[in-house]
Amino acid sequence: MSEFEKLLGSYQARVNQKLEVLLPHDDSILTSAMRYSVLNGGKRLRPILAYLTAELNDTEAEYMDTLASSLELIHCYSLIHDDLPAMDDDELRRGNPTTHKKFDEATAILAGDALQPLAFELISTIKTTDRNKVQMINSLSKACGYLGMVGGQIKDINSNQIKDVESLDSMHSEKTGRLIQASIETAGILSGLSPSDIDSLKEYGGKIGLAFQIQDDIIDIESPASVSGKDQGSDIGKDKTTYPSLVGLEASKVRAHELSKDAKKILQPINKNTDNLAMLADYIVSRKA
Amino acid sequence: MSEFEKLLGSYQARVNQKLEVLLPHDDSILTSAMRYSVLNGGKRLRPILAYLTAELNDTEAEYMDTLASSLELIHCYSLIHDDLPAMDDDELRRGNPTTHKKFDEATAILAGDALQPLAFELISTIKTTDRNKVQMINSLSKACGYLGMVGGQIKDINSNQIKDVESLDSMHSEKTGRLIQASIETAGILSGLSPSDIDSLKEYGGKIGLAFQIQDDIIDIESPASVSGKDQGSDIGKDKTTYPSLVGLEASKVRAHELSKDAKKILQPINKNTDNLAMLADYIVSRKA
Repeated sequence: MSEFEKLLGSYQARVNQKLEVLLPHDDSILTSAMRYSVLNGGKRLRPILAYLTAELNDTEAEYMDTLASSLELIHCYSLIHDDLPAMDDDELRRGNPTTHKKFDEATAILAGDALQPLAFELISTIKTTDRNKVQMINSLSKACGYLGMVGGQIKDINSNQIKDVESLDSMHSEKTGRLIQASIETAGILSGLSPSDIDSLKEYGGKIGLAFQIQDDIIDIESPASVSGKDQGSDIGKDKTTYPSLVGLEASKVRAHELSKDAKKILQPINKNTDNLAMLADYIVSRKA
Repeated sequence: MSEFEKLLGSYQARVNQKLEVLLPHDDSILTSAMRYSVLNGGKRLRPILAYLTAELNDTEAEYMDTLASSLELIHCYSLIHDDLPAMDDDELRRGNPTTHKKFDEATAILAGDALQPLAFELISTIKTTDRNKVQMINSLSKACGYLGMVGGQIKDINSNQIKDVESLDSMHSEKTGRLIQASIETAGILSGLSPSDIDSLKEYGGKIGLAFQIQDDIIDIESPASVSGKDQGSDIGKDKTTYPSLVGLEASKVRAHELSKDAKKILQPINKNTDNLAMLADYIVSRKA
């Protein structure tokens, strides 16, 4: 394992520990489903982005923990709802039964519905200025809305109507890219980066978000469930438009690597140590799960 | 129509006008479903509470419009999800097909998912201090979460297990009462009421919230769909525990009126003109729809 992978592992461990504490424990079905859906060994990409962004200003990881956790709560809520029978109808997530399979559909919908406001509540309690809290909430709420994650998701479930790369890019930019960019933006606000650095980093986030998504499509084809934690070929079975289905597997790999390279180029003019963000761009397109 | 009913009508009209402007119009399925679910002639109780609370400090209604709209967006999102097949499986809402009947289940889930963050986004843009925005978001996010609206909803769908009035009260306090209290609290914050007045008003809100719910149960039995906009007797058909099913129709009416009286008593020590809030307490238990 490389030094960089060890760093990622340490950030995963820290956000997992924080999530364990921040998620309610009252033994009700609802909070059990919330905990089940979040504490399941996810990749924690959005928290990692928040921590790596904070490194640019030498901000202590501890100061980022609540924000990092909130970003992951939003992501996990979106996964619960995406997996529902009315949406992607998935049975496996990260190698375990999806929330509606483990509990039931109503509980899954409500667990998602409760994770979302918990994220906003937590951000409202971070020890920083009110100005920063309002800006973070504004950024995150927009990323979650009809022009962001939810707007992208409705295009995704109708993705068999998508026939060109531009439309597929735009769907993924909304569905995945906006929350990734908001992860960077909110972390930049909290750690005091300049607006111009935040803008560059958001552009970087747009590139790695797309690269991440293309790599996900590649993994769906190439990795068995034992590695990816999802049903292999599940996109194909659902008649979804993916990068490989539009341009082929090889061209998809080329595109993912180009996006990763573009992302690294955007980092260069930033007058901070962005080495770890550059390594993350490489890591995203080399992962197998 | 009484002067008070005219006042309620004027507040309904103003929040409807504001919602019309604040909701996105991009002709996509998602935003069409969002608009359909919100712009349907609801009672607008939560916005009305915000306006009536602001009257105590002679705050202009215009200053409250965005907050009032945000509260209604949260309420409408919760209704969309409550009506889903996995929850109450309702086909009619306010006399029209429910969102999942008019569109489909995925679109209904996502319309709710997009309305919730829009509420937080809008509050983050209100022209007031950052301190006020953070406090309003904190209040509202808690009311929406696992200890509030969503916590109450999961108890409601399992309400056939509720066998006593205390548990039924507690379910409704979470499901309906918390958002009603947050409507008053956020409006109190925005209009600059004192913390002690806000506390009294929240107690008032707890009482009228329960009274409202009991009256809803009574309407479900006594009013045909043409008046209530819902299927008559729909609670009975779903084997839900209601006040009438626990204590009988007459005792339910007595309880609703007692709660309304208690609510008015709480208003008396407040050194402001609370006449309209008192009239609302009466109105809530006299309505037929």
